[in-house]
Amino acid sequence: MTTQISKLEVGKVKFQGMIETVRDKKNIQFVVLKDFSGKIQVTVDKIAHPEVGAIFAKLLTGSTVMVEGELVKSEYVKMGGQEVLAESVFVTSEAKEAYPIGPESNIDQRIDYRWLDLRQDKNLLIFKVQTCFTSAMREFLEQHDFVEIHSPKLIGTASESGSEVFEVKYFDGKAYLAQSPQFYKQLAITAGFGRVFECGPVFRAEKSHSRKHATEFTGFDLEFAGIESCEDVMKMEEELIAYALKKVSEKYGEEIKAAFGVDVVVPALPFPRIELKDLYAELEKRYGYKIDESEKDDLSTEGEKLCKQFAIDVYGHEFLFITGYGPRKRAFYHLRKDGIPQGYDLIWKGVEITTGAQREHRYDILKSQAEEKGLAQDVEFYLQFFKYGCPPHGGFGLGLDRIVMNLLELTNIKEAMFIFRGPERITP
Amino acid sequence: MTTQISKLEVGKVKFQGMIETVRDKKNIQFVVLKDFSGKIQVTVDKIAHPEVGAIFAKLLTGSTVMVEGELVKSEYVKMGGQEVLAESVFVTSEAKEAYPIGPESNIDQRIDYRWLDLRQDKNLLIFKVQTCFTSAMREFLEQHDFVEIHSPKLIGTASESGSEVFEVKYFDGKAYLAQSPQFYKQLAITAGFGRVFECGPVFRAEKSHSRKHATEFTGFDLEFAGIESCEDVMKMEEELIAYALKKVSEKYGEEIKAAFGVDVVVPALPFPRIELKDLYAELEKRYGYKIDESEKDDLSTEGEKLCKQFAIDVYGHEFLFITGYGPRKRAFYHLRKDGIPQGYDLIWKGVEITTGAQREHRYDILKSQAEEKGLAQDVEFYLQFFKYGCPPHGGFGLGLDRIVMNLLELTNIKEAMFIFRGPERITP
Repeated sequence: MTTQISKLEVGKVKFQGMIETVRDKKNIQFVVLKDFSGKIQVTVDKIAHPEVGAIFAKLLTGSTVMVEGELVKSEYVKMGGQEVLAESVFVTSEAKEAYPIGPESNIDQRIDYRWLDLRQDKNLLIFKVQTCFTSAMREFLEQHDFVEIHSPKLIGTASESGSEVFEVKYFDGKAYLAQSPQFYKQLAITAGFGRVFECGPVFRAEKSHSRKHATEFTGFDLEFAGIESCEDVMKMEEELIAYALKKVSEKYGEEIKAAFGVDVVVPALPFPRIELKDLYAELEKRYGYKIDESEKDDLSTEGEKLCKQFAIDVYGHEFLFITGYGPRKRAFYHLRKDGIPQGYDLIWKGVEITTGAQREHRYDILKSQAEEKGLAQDVEFYLQFFKYGCPPHGGFGLGLDRIVMNLLELTNIKEAMFIFRGPERITP
Repeated sequence: MTTQISKLEVGKVKFQGMIETVRDKKNIQFVVLKDFSGKIQVTVDKIAHPEVGAIFAKLLTGSTVMVEGELVKSEYVKMGGQEVLAESVFVTSEAKEAYPIGPESNIDQRIDYRWLDLRQDKNLLIFKVQTCFTSAMREFLEQHDFVEIHSPKLIGTASESGSEVFEVKYFDGKAYLAQSPQFYKQLAITAGFGRVFECGPVFRAEKSHSRKHATEFTGFDLEFAGIESCEDVMKMEEELIAYALKKVSEKYGEEIKAAFGVDVVVPALPFPRIELKDLYAELEKRYGYKIDESEKDDLSTEGEKLCKQFAIDVYGHEFLFITGYGPRKRAFYHLRKDGIPQGYDLIWKGVEITTGAQREHRYDILKSQAEEKGLAQDVEFYLQFFKYGCPPHGGFGLGLDRIVMNLLELTNIKEAMFIFRGPERITP
């Protein structure tokens, strides 16, 4: 294995890199090589090493090489104050064509050549940040004794909401792609697993073209027993997110500021909480926002956006927990207390990033709530899990791509996804 | 949130648990409650608390309760030398029926009620071990600057081998489920990501009913640039596995020995390596095993099994790297040197757990190797990734379920999977 560029030291070096630029002067060449860890200037003395100069002269951007030479400190070099005086170069791969896209291309053209688009430095940073955020969440959960599960994505029945599910030809029959690991996280709870999490793909057959939707994205889901109310679920979530943002801020705060102009704010605990009815009263009082009384059991799109301003104005906070939604738009498996689903949405910078809840764990009540929504048959297999006892529990799910989009204030989910999938997008 | 059972301390306690057993004597009851962290004996004085006794008397195994009382040390109690003297009990859920299965049921009956089957202590341990192993691998990779990716599972073309791929109805068209993240790991490498890993589901539409196969399982995949040969790939893999097994041994070695009778051996580095032709010569010499000369370019099933004995006899090791496979059965994207694919299989206790390789990174050669296998059209989209330069790289994939099955010496992959999926199994 050759040394990463960021770890090269003064003296004889041998390393690999991808060509970013070649500036070819009469007697000298300045080549910028990069790998995932950094960049370095390679300087070629064309008089002393004409064969090296000849090779670099004909290579297109993107070609890859192995270079041997001497790394020296040099006050004239902007890039890290050092350069490699090249002695030999070996071409490991040749780019055949110039890039058909650039940073100025529109996002859909860029996705056509996503592997080239991702060569932009800021795009790699997106995924380093995602890695850091996810890793920090897992670290927090392992400290809290969570067990990781990998639930099946191929499922036997089109559950929750049949219209938005992808159908799979499964040998001589049919299967469906899981829209969320919800039922299987809860299976783990009925199995006595106590605390579980899962990070994996979820599939939504929605013909939505909004800037926040994809047909496949990465979900990060938790479920845990031992709770006494929904408050315990919110507490777990705010601690988890604050922990992860702290890690991101420490490791990448400066790079994020430089590349995206965004300050990573480590949120104070606890996050502010408000009931939906109180929120609507405040939004009307402060910003003159009104909606019809009949729609006040759910958060409107405009209301969601206004939460950004509201949370900052009132709490000086980027996050806001909203509770007290009506049962009409909430899942049948949310536990209700005096008819109110014991769940919440978490809004970050005016974008809903989570729905969480205490779940209904008692078979009879769960069954009647499924019947009320006309789902009892669809979820028959799921109801069985609760027949043999189940502890009180709750949980939530995060969309990882949406979190990163929000964190870096990207304009579209397509920017935040390694490979985007939408109704008209199944490649590359 | 109430306190986990394993963390209860002497004095007044309030906690939740699932009923494992109730022994009802004339004036006293002994109840064993458990959660994911441990078990505890709850003792009910039926004279002092008849209402508590009456409640426990009618609850079936699996019902869940919240108990308040006093935890005292007691030398007469086998279970941890302590008991809780119950003062009150609140029933959080009631089991409606006795369990229809038990540990003696066959594996397929047990999977029908997997949420009850997983209540067996040793089954929870399987997933704690899997969590620990996976977490340790991620930790190792983050120390080595790997970036985590989540590649799409919905793909536009039935690549690699069309016959074993699931077809998805994708709006008005078709999509397929990814059989591995191979092409997308490599896309990340062409994008300059340098070092990537992914942990996620892979899908195989194989009508296989062996003890090692499933139609959906969890893959753990790596790909990294900067390598100079396949040896660098093997080195990364052996270090990764040794690191993870050390963590498992430290955290769960004793529990695994008690529950499964298996010693977790932390493997010495480097793992032994042998070329396939030399292996066959040794297997014939030592164990009289012969196969036809024409089949010696691939490892036979019987040869694979014999590796268990061979690795122990010759190297005193559980692991064995085998190199020098012929091109006939190896993927077109393995880099070849003098016609020999620069890849390997890793055999652990006589079971193949990985295929790894240096990949062909040069567009022209990759294309001609795809053509040779008759795949050039199917993999056209993938070949494009290599047109704009790509550094030398390699990687491997592990089946997480198979690793855990092997580690704990389970008889069937169905035991190691949270929820098994096979040609006839799409529930629960």
